[in-house]
Amino acid sequence: MRTFGGVEAGGTKFSCVLGSDPDHILSERTIRTTTPEKTLAQVIEFFAEASEPISSIGIGSFGPVELNQSSRFYGYITTTPKPHWQNTDVLGTISRALKMPIFIDTDTNVAGLAETKWGSAQSLNFVLYVTVGTGIGGGYIIDGKPYHGMLHPEIGHMRIPHDKKQDPFPGACSFHGDCLEGLASGPAIHKRWGIPGENLSLNHPAWIFETDYVAMGLVNLICTLSPQRIILGGGVMRRIELFDQIRTKVRDLAKGYFDQPQFQDKISEYIVPPMLGTRAGVLGALALAKDRLAS
Amino acid sequence: MRTFGGVEAGGTKFSCVLGSDPDHILSERTIRTTTPEKTLAQVIEFFAEASEPISSIGIGSFGPVELNQSSRFYGYITTTPKPHWQNTDVLGTISRALKMPIFIDTDTNVAGLAETKWGSAQSLNFVLYVTVGTGIGGGYIIDGKPYHGMLHPEIGHMRIPHDKKQDPFPGACSFHGDCLEGLASGPAIHKRWGIPGENLSLNHPAWIFETDYVAMGLVNLICTLSPQRIILGGGVMRRIELFDQIRTKVRDLAKGYFDQPQFQDKISEYIVPPMLGTRAGVLGALALAKDRLAS
Repeated sequence: MRTFGGVEAGGTKFSCVLGSDPDHILSERTIRTTTPEKTLAQVIEFFAEASEPISSIGIGSFGPVELNQSSRFYGYITTTPKPHWQNTDVLGTISRALKMPIFIDTDTNVAGLAETKWGSAQSLNFVLYVTVGTGIGGGYIIDGKPYHGMLHPEIGHMRIPHDKKQDPFPGACSFHGDCLEGLASGPAIHKRWGIPGENLSLNHPAWIFETDYVAMGLVNLICTLSPQRIILGGGVMRRIELFDQIRTKVRDLAKGYFDQPQFQDKISEYIVPPMLGTRAGVLGALALAKDRLAS
Repeated sequence: MRTFGGVEAGGTKFSCVLGSDPDHILSERTIRTTTPEKTLAQVIEFFAEASEPISSIGIGSFGPVELNQSSRFYGYITTTPKPHWQNTDVLGTISRALKMPIFIDTDTNVAGLAETKWGSAQSLNFVLYVTVGTGIGGGYIIDGKPYHGMLHPEIGHMRIPHDKKQDPFPGACSFHGDCLEGLASGPAIHKRWGIPGENLSLNHPAWIFETDYVAMGLVNLICTLSPQRIILGGGVMRRIELFDQIRTKVRDLAKGYFDQPQFQDKISEYIVPPMLGTRAGVLGALALAKDRLAS
């Protein structure tokens, strides 16, 4: 059995794993995200210390990431609002230190890949993975492969209806103010109410707004991508009670235009939490390492 | 050279064509859209009268259309708001009358296909075709093939910001009110101002709203699909002056988050009118007939 590496590069932490699949994990390490220099040095160290040969490493990174292999910035994190991380050569820095094939994709694309390969979406061709956490992002897996397009999806920055009379919060996105991410990410909830989401009670009005905004985003994604399943992950979605509220709101917003069972009695199979839970990201990075080396 | 048939099935008219490519068209007929029985009978008549054998026919239809070949409603127009046309078996009706291979896709998907095959997007892998006319729809061509997903894109029904203080119009969509189509389609402009768009002068405030709504829709599509080119067709977009206003607004809304030249100095090559003009639809239906028979 060959050994692969996976890195989930997040704004708060980098999770590294060594193994071949979810049932065969050899070692793991969590690294706090500080500056690129320090963080990437610790990632390199983790893999350099491995006792067995590594066939390839996959990285699932926060973004935007340049994924166009013909670009001279291939593998860079580019215009992120995250301090210190603008224009960071993640792929190049790791590649130069560890002489082996290294592949990169977005954090949400690899999480979707993991759900398609090892999770609840194994038989599906059109799988959307949405994360609602520090940011809002989406990965889309078509026929088992992460979709990119010209760059890659950046669904958090779509614009949705925002009734400023009901909710005067101007939004928390440093680029767009009240885009989807600016209204519904974890930091947006925190900024809006002065309290982190995990400390807000279930009957707090925050969750009515959150449900509306996330559902609106999902409806727009359904109108555009028409996925077979939507997997909703990320820190905010660990509040599992939100799922039923979001499903109801999505159905309300569709208003019968889509008459498939996925929008009626099968909606609880249509919008689901990740089967791999918080491990979807790092396992997806491992899946990327395997799939891309094989292709 | 083999002969193929193409049908652009629209809410106002059905355009039929016989030929093999844009330079080899043998005959054409335009049929006014009335009831399904009368309209489809005239379509069948056009092809039945052909003097040479037809290899296959492609249909690009207004929607929603059931495109899932394993569904018993495959080839039906389903929940359309268009009177008489709900649950119409377009593909089956034509197939039963004309014994030959018949293929169906959405009107916007085939228009995008035509632009990819014979128009301005021949070398591109991710091509978005958006029509702003009687409705608002989008077709997406990945590697030369129309994209479907579970159903097919229905981008007109996405929700976008709508400042009701600035624009109190409740929207014209019979399902959703002020979705993108409800705010920015031709009928929405007509209903909002009491005058058809083509009779509104260029400095009428209608075009400021129109620009904002269309640009907002495009930004959401960019955030989701990340296309390499956006082709904007349809009756409303024949007002060519709108293009520069929409491009400027898209760039403003992106606020530097996307730093590719497509959002800067190359935006006039990024958001473009169809090279095949109003013939993109019917030529796309012909392209569908050829491509699907060959595949």
